[in-house]
Amino acid sequence: MFKVVGQQDKARAGILQTKHCIIHTPYWMPVATKASVKTLSAEDLSTLGPPLLMCNTYHLMLQPGPEVIEKLGGLHKFMSWPKALMTDSGGFQVMSLGYETKKGKLGFFPSESNELELPSKVKITENGVKFNSIHGPVMLTPESSIGIQEKLGADMILAFDECTHPQAGREYTKNSMERTNRWAERSLAAHKRKDQALFGIIQGGAYKDLRKESAEAISSMGFKGIAIGGSLGNTKKDMHKVLEWTMDELPDDKARHMLGIGTVEDCFEAVERGIDLFDCVGPTRIGRSGYAYISPKAGGTKKNKFRFNITRAAFRTDTEPIDPGCGCLTCKTYSRAYLHHLFKAKEYLAYRALSVHNIHFMLGLMEDMRQAIMHGEFGKMKKAWLGRG
Amino acid sequence: MFKVVGQQDKARAGILQTKHCIIHTPYWMPVATKASVKTLSAEDLSTLGPPLLMCNTYHLMLQPGPEVIEKLGGLHKFMSWPKALMTDSGGFQVMSLGYETKKGKLGFFPSESNELELPSKVKITENGVKFNSIHGPVMLTPESSIGIQEKLGADMILAFDECTHPQAGREYTKNSMERTNRWAERSLAAHKRKDQALFGIIQGGAYKDLRKESAEAISSMGFKGIAIGGSLGNTKKDMHKVLEWTMDELPDDKARHMLGIGTVEDCFEAVERGIDLFDCVGPTRIGRSGYAYISPKAGGTKKNKFRFNITRAAFRTDTEPIDPGCGCLTCKTYSRAYLHHLFKAKEYLAYRALSVHNIHFMLGLMEDMRQAIMHGEFGKMKKAWLGRG
Repeated sequence: MFKVVGQQDKARAGILQTKHCIIHTPYWMPVATKASVKTLSAEDLSTLGPPLLMCNTYHLMLQPGPEVIEKLGGLHKFMSWPKALMTDSGGFQVMSLGYETKKGKLGFFPSESNELELPSKVKITENGVKFNSIHGPVMLTPESSIGIQEKLGADMILAFDECTHPQAGREYTKNSMERTNRWAERSLAAHKRKDQALFGIIQGGAYKDLRKESAEAISSMGFKGIAIGGSLGNTKKDMHKVLEWTMDELPDDKARHMLGIGTVEDCFEAVERGIDLFDCVGPTRIGRSGYAYISPKAGGTKKNKFRFNITRAAFRTDTEPIDPGCGCLTCKTYSRAYLHHLFKAKEYLAYRALSVHNIHFMLGLMEDMRQAIMHGEFGKMKKAWLGRG
Repeated sequence: MFKVVGQQDKARAGILQTKHCIIHTPYWMPVATKASVKTLSAEDLSTLGPPLLMCNTYHLMLQPGPEVIEKLGGLHKFMSWPKALMTDSGGFQVMSLGYETKKGKLGFFPSESNELELPSKVKITENGVKFNSIHGPVMLTPESSIGIQEKLGADMILAFDECTHPQAGREYTKNSMERTNRWAERSLAAHKRKDQALFGIIQGGAYKDLRKESAEAISSMGFKGIAIGGSLGNTKKDMHKVLEWTMDELPDDKARHMLGIGTVEDCFEAVERGIDLFDCVGPTRIGRSGYAYISPKAGGTKKNKFRFNITRAAFRTDTEPIDPGCGCLTCKTYSRAYLHHLFKAKEYLAYRALSVHNIHFMLGLMEDMRQAIMHGEFGKMKKAWLGRG
């Protein structure tokens, strides 16, 4: 299903064959949490051209429910999407929503804890995860997660895992990783649909031996692809190390998906270390807050995170498009001044216009990375974007 | 600028020539209050094809301000709109926002009052209207309204008037109407731009002699078109009478615009009585609440107001489009079940998909009315839609 067609050091250019289409990697997929990439229509997506979207099992399980989507012919037909889809396992949402407190996220974990005081909203057992959602109690197990994902019918699905809490200590992380490995076996055993590719998920926090152990275990199980999940440490350097430890253990012939990551800088660093796939709500979410991505030519730097905020007063009468070098429909149609106005006036179009631009930007960035890898110029490209530091 | 090209009894089919394009009447124009038809892009509008939109002087005056829009080359360029635009005078918003109370609208007017206890937010003098907006005090006069509308640069603009309160008594309505006539003269005198067509506004409430007096006065002043504003009484019958009294006094060679009206039934009744133009936020606003317009063939009746609400549980697994006979992008792309889900999930696309459908419906309805008038079948069409009653 996956083939490396170009390589520069550890960075890979690949071809991922799915039921619905081919995906050229490295690739960042837009996220359609509730079967809709927020603000965008099927037509917008057709113009933007992403071959693969990520949908969210947890949210779709609650609304409209897997039975409804199955009855309607599956997720593709339901959302009028002719290309490839991936679904996550729902585990991350159950965990992250469960850990949220009223005052802020992740409030229940004492630092470096091995005996996690779990909030009452989430209970993790060998069988699975119980979560008191706002819609009532939810129970997810490897078997039920896979069952739901089979009903949704995405091209690629994910094994059920525990996304280990970043404040979890070594002992907890080890036990959790070992349980995730057992859940991986159960996910594989539960998975019957032959037209879906099941990806396993590597955990192990920011611990070298645990990451290596997990990578080895998951790689040996017969998944069609490999995802890297969980805590990646506290700093960018931690993340880079986790990636390096993990990549060393992975087979070349399986696509590697880094879950939930997607800033410009992180994508460069991860691709350099051998990652093929990304999913992240960031580009569309920051778009809805007024942040527009810009390339180095348009003033993007590592420091400004390759973006500016269109709501800044400076753009009030600016007749230029977001990025004069960008070919997206937003840049071809609207001035910064108009977009600035749309945000000030809280018009729906504001959120959509910047989502279009940011998705176009991310797809172009990944395609440029791919080209650079194919031509042996990835290092040069990365330097041009991020500088030497 | 306006020519009747077909007539059946009082119903007219006409051609309205504006600076940017021709408009075939009868015609309902989508409203782009803040220089954006809510949820829709320039591309969506280009696909839907309306030749004329209505923008709101009051809202654009506050954000981004007329100077900004003028500096950016006018409203057309600002919002990337290549066809015709109309702006209102701002009078209606100042009045209606001023009359609003915390508990509900129009709370300050004792019934049939001739000495209106105006809320402190609005003060009407011979010079104009003072309004304490949430953005600070706003003063609008005929001269300032026309000045702002010249800066915005729409193809058609409206004289500054007082939209008489529906609870105002005869004496107040008469005085207000006479003042509106004086404001009409001042609006004409203030208007310098030769490439804009200035429409006068008829007031006079639900009083026959006042409506006739106003219609005669406004018709004699040399406006390029005539709008009917203000209170139209308490019932549909009142509205029909007001229209009949007024139409009798109007010249044939000027377009007649009924301000702020736009239900299916009202459009039929008004077109039958000689109205050519409508503007109304209704079709897009009800779309954002889940109401989808349907023709009689799809089950639309006078009783159900030619619409159903997609959020009803009945649509949860309905694989049909909103209207199987509709050619809009929403009906060509999405099932009722998916649209139902989008509303339940509060996805942005929900509001947009129904706005597209409802605008397509309204444009098609008006075009069908035009065709019916041209072929002498308007009465037959009206009966098929509204029944005999």
